[in-house]
This record gives sequence, C-alpha cells and structure tokens, in this order.
Amino acid sequence: MHPADRIQAGIERTGSVLVVGLDPRPELVPPDLVQSALADGLSGADAVAKVFLGLNTQIIEMAAGSCAAVKPQLACYEAYGAAGWRCLEATIAACEAADIPVVADGKRNDIGSTAAHYGQAAFGGAVDLEGHLLPGLGVDWLTVNAYLGSDGITPFLDATPNAGLFVLVRTSNPSSVELQEVALAGNSEFGGERTVADHMAGLVRSWGEERVGASGLASVGAVVGATQPNAARALRLLMPNTPFLVPGYGAQGADADDAVAGARPDGSGILVNSSRGIMGAWRAQPERPWQDSIADAIGSANSALGAALARI
Amino acid sequence: MHPADRIQAGIERTGSVLVVGLDPRPELVPPDLVQSALADGLSGADAVAKVFLGLNTQIIEMAAGSCAAVKPQLACYEAYGAAGWRCLEATIAACEAADIPVVADGKRNDIGSTAAHYGQAAFGGAVDLEGHLLPGLGVDWLTVNAYLGSDGITPFLDATPNAGLFVLVRTSNPSSVELQEVALAGNSEFGGERTVADHMAGLVRSWGEERVGASGLASVGAVVGATQPNAARALRLLMPNTPFLVPGYGAQGADADDAVAGARPDGSGILVNSSRGIMGAWRAQPERPWQDSIADAIGSANSALGAALARI
Repeated sequence: MHPADRIQAGIERTGSVLVVGLDPRPELVPPDLVQSALADGLSGADAVAKVFLGLNTQIIEMAAGSCAAVKPQLACYEAYGAAGWRCLEATIAACEAADIPVVADGKRNDIGSTAAHYGQAAFGGAVDLEGHLLPGLGVDWLTVNAYLGSDGITPFLDATPNAGLFVLVRTSNPSSVELQEVALAGNSEFGGERTVADHMAGLVRSWGEERVGASGLASVGAVVGATQPNAARALRLLMPNTPFLVPGYGAQGADADDAVAGARPDGSGILVNSSRGIMGAWRAQPERPWQDSIADAIGSANSALGAALARI
Repeated sequence: MHPADRIQAGIERTGSVLVVGLDPRPELVPPDLVQSALADGLSGADAVAKVFLGLNTQIIEMAAGSCAAVKPQLACYEAYGAAGWRCLEATIAACEAADIPVVADGKRNDIGSTAAHYGQAAFGGAVDLEGHLLPGLGVDWLTVNAYLGSDGITPFLDATPNAGLFVLVRTSNPSSVELQEVALAGNSEFGGERTVADHMAGLVRSWGEERVGASGLASVGAVVGATQPNAARALRLLMPNTPFLVPGYGAQGADADDAVAGARPDGSGILVNSSRGIMGAWRAQPERPWQDSIADAIGSANSALGAALARI
C-alpha cells in the first residue's frame, strides 16, 4: 500500500494526526519496570533493552486506535548496540501487530548502493548468502537528510516501491537558521528572499511529483518544525502535495495551533509528533499509575490537535 | 588522545594517508569464506555477519601498518540488523587490537540529547539502569551531516572530549551540486560566488577553531570529494586547519592527484578513502589468492597517493 494512503486511512479511522514518539531513555522508564528487570538478574545493555521494550509495548497498546503513527528515534536504540537494535526490531513488530504505521526516525543519508543498504535496513530487501531477501525493520517511513541531493534519495525509492521518506526541510531547533535560513542568490517565485530550506522544499516537491497516492499525498514528505508556523505556511505553498511531519510540539515550546500551521486548507497533510510529552508524562504525576498519565497525555494531545485543526 | 593527533601519528609511522573502507557486501566476499559459513550450517543474517567479519579481519591484518585508518560504512552492517551490528562491534574491536584508528561512516545527524545518543553509540558513554557507562562502538571519528546547524554538532563534541567528526561539506557524487553548489546571496571573502558548501565550510572551521590538537589539525574535519579537485583547493583556503576525508578515489573516477588536491601546502591534512577498489580487488583476478589481490591493491593505492603528495 502507498505509505501516504496507509497513513491517511489511519487518520480517518482514528481521527488523530498524532505521532507518538518512542524515544526511550533510562530516566523515562517507570521504576516498576526497572525493578523488574534488575530482579531478573539482567544488567548492562540487555537490561536497558528489556525495560525499553516493556515500556514501548505498553505505550503501543495504549496508542493503538488513538494515533496516526508511532516514531521510534533510532539513536535511542543504537546507543545500546546490538541489544538496542533487537529491542527496536521487537518494538516495530509490536506496532505492526497493532496495525500502527511506523516512522523510523533515523535521518539517514548516503548515496547509491549505500543509500540502498540503509533502505534495506529500514524497509527490507537485504540479500543473504543464498540470495534470500531479509525483512529489515519493516517500517513504513524513514526520515532522511538530503544534503547529498537526488543521489541520496532516489536509491531509497527505487529499491522499495512502498517506501515513504520524510526529508529534513526546516527543523524545529534554534540553530536550524545557521544553514536552512541562509538566503540564496535571486528571489522566490512568490517574491522575497529564497532560502536553503525553500530550495530543499523544491527538491522534495520534485522527488514526490511522480509518487502521489490515491490520498493525493506523495510518498516523499517533509520534516517541518512546529516552532516556525509562518515558515510552515510558506513551505506549504511550495509543497502542496507533501505530507509534513512536525516535530517540536510540546517539549520544544510550540502549541497545537503552531503545530498544524502547515496543514493543507482541508486540514490534511500533517502529522504532529510528541515524544517526551507522552513518554515522560508520568514523571510530573508520581502519585498516579504511570499508565494513566501516559494515556491521558495521548488523549490531551489528540484533543488539542483536533481543536486546532478545526480552527484552520 | 586528540583524534587528529592520533591520525597524524599514524600517518607519520606508516607513511600512508590511505583510509581502507570496510563496506562488506555479499558479492564482495570471496567464495571460500562463503562456503565455510554455509558448511557451518549458518544462514540468513548470521551467515552474512560471519563472512563479513572473516573478510574484515583478514583485511585489517593486511592493512595494519599500511594505512592511516579504516572506515566501516555503517549502512552495510545495519542492513543485517542486530547480527550486522555485532559484526560491526567485532570489526572495530579488531581494529583497536591492531592499533588502527577507526572512522565510522554513519553520516549521523540529530539535535541535543538525541545527537548525544548517536555520540554514545559511536564513542561510548550511554548509561545503563545502574548508572554504569557502556563502551559503544569505541571509534575515533564519526562522519556527520550538519544540515541542522550547531545543535546537531556540539552535543557530539561536548559529550566526548576526544571525539572526532567529519562533517559533509562537498561530496563526490554527481547530484551534490543540487544543494551544495547553489549560490548564496552576496560574494565570498575571496571574491566570486559563495555556495552552500562554502557556507558549510565556514561553520566547520568555526566548530573546529577551539579544538585544534598538537598536530595543528582540528577534531572537526570535512568530507570533501575527490571528484572536484578545484573545489577542494578552494575549500582548503576556507578551512586551513581542518582534516579532509576524501571519498571518491578510484571507484568514482578520481585519480590520486585529484584525491590529494585539498592537502595543505606541506601535504598534511588529508585522508583518502578507497573501499571497493581494495575490498573488491580480487574479483578482477580470479586466478590469484584473493588475499594477494587485496594486499596489492593497498600497496598500489599507497604508492599512487605518496607520489601524488610528492608532486604538491
């Protein structure tokens, strides 16, 4: 299934544009899970991988039917080596079992056959010694960085017909201006300055043009941070059929109206991520069962985003 | 030890600026290694990981004393999941045992604590449930992509005092022009157009300024492709104390003179990678023992690069 169509069907079924971030860190794991892993005699990276998977599995259960996708942050797993990678594989398998689309946040980038290898890691298709294809992580979407140009993007798309890519365009962090907002020679098609991010938006639009699904959205999306709502509105004009993945809601200070600023006029084309705001919600409410705090945080994010979309 | 000083000491000891790429793929594994893994009853990703490690270990043995560093391409391992990651860990351990510096080619990028997690994966320092620090891959250098600006670079450097980073500036692939050679508003300090790559060079220089080792070279380096020797010479003016990691020699059509074009006037500050040209050298010489072909390829690359450096 075209990856944008799968996401769109999920949004229509659940009424949610929320992407639940699965960025586990030791300090985000509730104490009862830690105690249970230590009581089992586990230590080191194996113990960490066990509690990460325990936490993820419960969040996936709560998020099923109440989110558009989940987004594991690959760095959080990679920091724990092979044990972390096994935890990532099991986490994604649990998402697939719950029929939740998965966006692997890896910001991968390379060229040619090396890019294809990253694609195999995410979407499957690596070959073993006997010529059999291996499944890889089996995700729907991967975040990528396009500093290398088309040579770093098309190998992902050519290798897997249903691969979805979110390309970094305008990120939510303060120093994104150091490169992304640098002015280019010449003016924009809408008048005014044209920036590196605008140029990247044009590349993203062109990569997606031949890859639009039945939903009207392309399989090449854009990462556009919630902290720059005006930039998001301007980038929407440059990328009318591009799904936006929006980080920075909540934890980085943007509110729900900021987060959906880049939606299309009908409210489509937008996915809003929340990671620490959900996974860490229990830490401010030590008197409650942690599952209740996390479930409430998912519900609150959905209410706020739904109300903001209704105001568009 | 400062990562540039470690590299420089190795160059002085071995007389080599060659970085041997360890980018294993099934088609690059000599048949005797494949047969031996299959005879052991291994299959799938485990069999691939076993032959990759067998090949890597023999190349590391041949390269010790004859190269400046080795560079595993993370995508090649990641395509085989947790088994691939274990192979990567064992490969890097073999390099450390042979006292060869390691450049992990991961082109990683993210911000804040997420970037720090990638740093922990590469350089060590992730924390387990009991507060112990884990070793990570234990490499000396990591390639990174700085589209996110300083927020995506300083967390790596702050977390690990002896971490070295090679930042993508001007890559060797044809489509690098799509973003990297786009002209910015205003002219360069040397007159003429200023490009995105020139701007990135300025950022790289600034990140490295406070991080220069006894060798006079910084721990923030630049990836500058061999296929654009004129660009490399111009970028050297913008980054006088920056180590250059040069891909594209051999396989991508650049010769040894092109590859060393970005060296400093005294010939220092340059590392030249060869991957398929070494690992795949045996395929054109099926009548010889594959080890002999690979050893000869290392020797030929060193001779060609040494002669080119003498012509500077």
